[in-house]
Amino acid sequence: MHTVFSDGSVWPDIRVIEAWQEGLDALVISDHIEYLPHKSDMIINHNRPFEIAQPIAKNYGMILIRGAELTRSNPPGHLNAVFITDVTEMDTSDYTVALMKAKEQGGFIFMNHPFWKSPKYPVVNGKVDWFKEHEELYKLGLINGIEIVNDREYYKEGYRWAIEKNLVKMGNSDIHHPTNMYFDFSKDDHRAMTLVFAKEKTLESIKEALFENRTVVYYSDKLLGDEKFLREIFNKSITISKKFYKQSKGTKFFIQVENNSDVTYTLLTSGKVEGFNLPSEVILHKNRTIMMELTPQSKEMVGIFKVKLPFIVSNLLINHEDTLPVEFEIEVELE
Amino acid sequence: MHTVFSDGSVWPDIRVIEAWQEGLDALVISDHIEYLPHKSDMIINHNRPFEIAQPIAKNYGMILIRGAELTRSNPPGHLNAVFITDVTEMDTSDYTVALMKAKEQGGFIFMNHPFWKSPKYPVVNGKVDWFKEHEELYKLGLINGIEIVNDREYYKEGYRWAIEKNLVKMGNSDIHHPTNMYFDFSKDDHRAMTLVFAKEKTLESIKEALFENRTVVYYSDKLLGDEKFLREIFNKSITISKKFYKQSKGTKFFIQVENNSDVTYTLLTSGKVEGFNLPSEVILHKNRTIMMELTPQSKEMVGIFKVKLPFIVSNLLINHEDTLPVEFEIEVELE
Amino acid sequence: MHTVFSDGSVWPDIRVIEAWQEGLDALVISDHIEYLPHKSDMIINHNRPFEIAQPIAKNYGMILIRGAELTRSNPPGHLNAVFITDVTEMDTSDYTVALMKAKEQGGFIFMNHPFWKSPKYPVVNGKVDWFKEHEELYKLGLINGIEIVNDREYYKEGYRWAIEKNLVKMGNSDIHHPTNMYFDFSKDDHRAMTLVFAKEKTLESIKEALFENRTVVYYSDKLLGDEKFLREIFNKSITISKKFYKQSKGTKFFIQVENNSDVTYTLLTSGKVEGFNLPSEVILHKNRTIMMELTPQSKEMVGIFKVKLPFIVSNLLINHEDTLPVEFEIEVELE
Amino acid sequence: MHTVFSDGSVWPDIRVIEAWQEGLDALVISDHIEYLPHKSDMIINHNRPFEIAQPIAKNYGMILIRGAELTRSNPPGHLNAVFITDVTEMDTSDYTVALMKAKEQGGFIFMNHPFWKSPKYPVVNGKVDWFKEHEELYKLGLINGIEIVNDREYYKEGYRWAIEKNLVKMGNSDIHHPTNMYFDFSKDDHRAMTLVFAKEKTLESIKEALFENRTVVYYSDKLLGDEKFLREIFNKSITISKKFYKQSKGTKFFIQVENNSDVTYTLLTSGKVEGFNLPSEVILHKNRTIMMELTPQSKEMVGIFKVKLPFIVSNLLINHEDTLPVEFEIEVELE
Repeated sequence: MHTVFSDGSVWPDIRVIEAWQEGLDALVISDHIEYLPHKSDMIINHNRPFEIAQPIAKNYGMILIRGAELTRSNPPGHLNAVFITDVTEMDTSDYTVALMKAKEQGGFIFMNHPFWKSPKYPVVNGKVDWFKEHEELYKLGLINGIEIVNDREYYKEGYRWAIEKNLVKMGNSDIHHPTNMYFDFSKDDHRAMTLVFAKEKTLESIKEALFENRTVVYYSDKLLGDEKFLREIFNKSITISKKFYKQSKGTKFFIQVENNSDVTYTLLTSGKVEGFNLPSEVILHKNRTIMMELTPQSKEMVGIFKVKLPFIVSNLLINHEDTLPVEFEIEVELE
Repeated sequence: MHTVFSDGSVWPDIRVIEAWQEGLDALVISDHIEYLPHKSDMIINHNRPFEIAQPIAKNYGMILIRGAELTRSNPPGHLNAVFITDVTEMDTSDYTVALMKAKEQGGFIFMNHPFWKSPKYPVVNGKVDWFKEHEELYKLGLINGIEIVNDREYYKEGYRWAIEKNLVKMGNSDIHHPTNMYFDFSKDDHRAMTLVFAKEKTLESIKEALFENRTVVYYSDKLLGDEKFLREIFNKSITISKKFYKQSKGTKFFIQVENNSDVTYTLLTSGKVEGFNLPSEVILHKNRTIMMELTPQSKEMVGIFKVKLPFIVSNLLINHEDTLPVEFEIEVELE
Repeated sequence: MHTVFSDGSVWPDIRVIEAWQEGLDALVISDHIEYLPHKSDMIINHNRPFEIAQPIAKNYGMILIRGAELTRSNPPGHLNAVFITDVTEMDTSDYTVALMKAKEQGGFIFMNHPFWKSPKYPVVNGKVDWFKEHEELYKLGLINGIEIVNDREYYKEGYRWAIEKNLVKMGNSDIHHPTNMYFDFSKDDHRAMTLVFAKEKTLESIKEALFENRTVVYYSDKLLGDEKFLREIFNKSITISKKFYKQSKGTKFFIQVENNSDVTYTLLTSGKVEGFNLPSEVILHKNRTIMMELTPQSKEMVGIFKVKLPFIVSNLLINHEDTLPVEFEIEVELE
Repeated sequence: MHTVFSDGSVWPDIRVIEAWQEGLDALVISDHIEYLPHKSDMIINHNRPFEIAQPIAKNYGMILIRGAELTRSNPPGHLNAVFITDVTEMDTSDYTVALMKAKEQGGFIFMNHPFWKSPKYPVVNGKVDWFKEHEELYKLGLINGIEIVNDREYYKEGYRWAIEKNLVKMGNSDIHHPTNMYFDFSKDDHRAMTLVFAKEKTLESIKEALFENRTVVYYSDKLLGDEKFLREIFNKSITISKKFYKQSKGTKFFIQVENNSDVTYTLLTSGKVEGFNLPSEVILHKNRTIMMELTPQSKEMVGIFKVKLPFIVSNLLINHEDTLPVEFEIEVELE
């Protein structure tokens, strides 16, 4: 996120307040080090955005993380260093030196918007790969993560890189204006964000979780991340109120499915269920309960049936190609 | 609630579906017995609304309660009998007999909209009282409760009667059209309803709770009921995230207050807090967290202070005259 | 639209009131003649829905059109007759006779949901065609129009038939429940409807326009109809506030485009503009003004340029295959 | 409005963009001259906010007016000078000199938030009056207007002063954060603003209208201004679709009233209408059409009646004490 201290249009306090209003727990302000269009009106000090925002963050109970955006042409492009302690040390001409300084400070470094205005990446074995400059930084331990989402852009190839190269998956807003100028909050719109599976709500715990690659990216209506995390989120979100149904034979019945999360899930039926017709698509609206209609295929079926409903959740992407498979299990007695 | 079987404009199924959509657990359809404007187009059978709606209710997991509205001029006016088993028995000319039939069936009986188009009630000792006809029914055990809210109307005198005569407080929608024609659900509008403190989500448990006078009425932005129930609702709704604050002396700080309910509470400060300025009004928006600003009155105060913030909740009416007092307690260390 | 007099769930008055609330000028209630699931509770008279709704319509200033739905298996399937004067005459076993009665009454007849649960239509010259039963009715002048949209379903082949056979294009809601149970009006949702290009707001004028094939179908975010009508609607909706721009060379500028209609238009750029970069997609939100960014491709260009911006409006379907082409013309002086 | 150049939290471009988004035609940025909390991070130049915002305003077709806020303790308090050409000239210790500089530049000067944290104003003949310092400035022609509304505060005494001293009535937002942090635009909330009755949409024409005292203040749900302007706004907003009604005697009928404006008007009945019952309150929702119910008091009345419905519009304040009276006229034939 940017402020007037680089090319943003808000004072640092706004970044904290709007993040709190939108329900975030933690945020990074990461102004450009090298791109300073307001410098004729500002006395630039790269540590000031953090210093100004910090007391506001304390009052709002927000975790504010110091960060900065190293801003070079690609390669290596833009890289964010976060959890650093002094941005000014990174203000140096050699980008490798700058990132080493960040690393020495305990920084976590990731590539920003790898496919934004990018030059042609090399193709290796028929697949797009990053530049040798990235490979060199990576070998030096100077790339820990990668944005697979920036603002409203999703980088499918970036998601593949993240998996293949074991990079932490990041999704960020990269906002310059006040967030309400990009997002219509009255219409379920929201900024891109990285969900971090931290053990505690502390800066240290978030840092640990990032270095241990425990993130999920949330943007638009989609969640992107490892299957175990997405399954955990889905299972915590969804409740089937009633597992056993007693019905007159041949009659339709409703499975009541509660979604207690702020994410709408779209289920696509991924297989058949012997003896029952089920809908091909089910939308589990955020914070809502819906009725999923099930009909026995024959009016003659009687007895107790264990029914397993197979779906994929089309907006949960467990890698750059696949979506999360889930199964609902109920029992029906037709009499 | 009414259907086409008396003077309503919907088939009974709609009453179930809209109640489910609005998040209710239980409902009564209580068509008029005597007022039947559609009778030239309908084959009237007072039990049909229940019979038609019952399978829909089963599918939606809703508790449907059989009811009927005895419809006479006032006195005795309109009275609802609910939890009855056969409405047709009540279709008789003598209203006392009709209510006795309801009682025999296990019915719970309450006065509807006691001040709607009512004739002049008698005044006893300077206060409005009900008619002797009501007193007679009451003595026969044929009035268990009273609507203190009907649709958007609140009857302050009815609330007083409920307390003085130990009547169960009811608040009902009395809808005739589809609910969306009365309520703008996109603007936090909702129907009047009776919250019943039942031990289980069953018809029997609701019935028990009603006869034992465990209700709260919810209408507009207000809750009306016994202090113990309102306090319980408020306490379950509100969480203060942080109880201890460490601050530089003289600086303002924010108490973060979460409202996890669907009711917006309006707090009015009801006293002073030594040493601190607090806002005169705090609105705890439904399903939102707000920041309550507190400022030490002097920049010289240091040390640890236990602060008790006294409020009344202006939309929680513990009787016809008073609102619920509450207190928030936090600790501040100024250094 | 249906009421309790066939398989609907509302009394006829609701159809009028909800149509008024949603901004319609005219409506047809067209209950099934043959499908009467409520007949054990209702005294069925096919003319009653109109008779009951008529005084309500008068009070609301709505034009109420008498109609009925002939309900047979396909072929011929379901057909609506509207502008009729006595529905009971159509209640006869031979469907051709029934439709002739409708025609004699001045009725306008159209096929309902031609592809809903339909048997396999014949294929002629590689294209789906209707049944010979339809052809026979058509030759007798007993099919004037066809639903190319029913509820949320669009029939692409039906649109083709409409053009090839010169049938009036209809789009209808076919509602059974209160409309708010299908449509989320707080989210720009709306019922399918037929826009009729009548000269006056009278029943006679609507009837004339229908027989003269002057309709546009509106459903979801789409308008379907003859190019001349869609162009007229688009041109009446859209205003470009400023036609001449004076700019420093090389700088971007904004074309301000007002959409004064209730329809959101999606423009896709359908060609290049020499010397200028333009966005590939522009969304003209309903009742909003947007800024369309234009940038000169070279910083050296000076002089006056007439710029024609070519688009197709992707949600305006002038036939079953094509969308409406439009062009914006402005002038820029770069200096 | 404020920016980071004084105590605001946004870069000047945001003020233009958000004003455009909210539908304004013109705006003033008026940073404090003397109150500069960001001065350790900014290179302060009082003309920069205007210079930075001007090209943005040009692109958005917005009229940007240069302004500044003279910021002294009260008296004289804060005063805005607008339509000035060089703010730096006003940066001088003597406030009278500063305002004279503004006047020489053609500036229009008004008192800001006259009752915000104000010391005790003198009381003259039982009425609150301003300070002699104000009187002196006024006599020198250095006070042209007064804020009767600032943000969400309305100054009733200020409105009285405006009328008694012939000061131009101003209502302003005084925003420091992005506007969406103060206003919930999804709930019909909006900033306070001054509506200027200019002949053309140009800076010169707005300036002329201000000096000629042609303004209305719009805040919350209220409009405040001279009766002639408020009546003009109301008449342009409201249309009665039908002036003549033909009815069966004794039956109720609906007068359809369209409100084509963005302001909701609340009508209170201010008199009786012989022979007809009318509602005591009518709310004309913004951009909506409503039905106003009228019922003949007797079922025997027949003939043609000219009915004049008398109201006051309770949210249109023609002075500090009175609201706008209006009258609707229709004709009814009862037969």
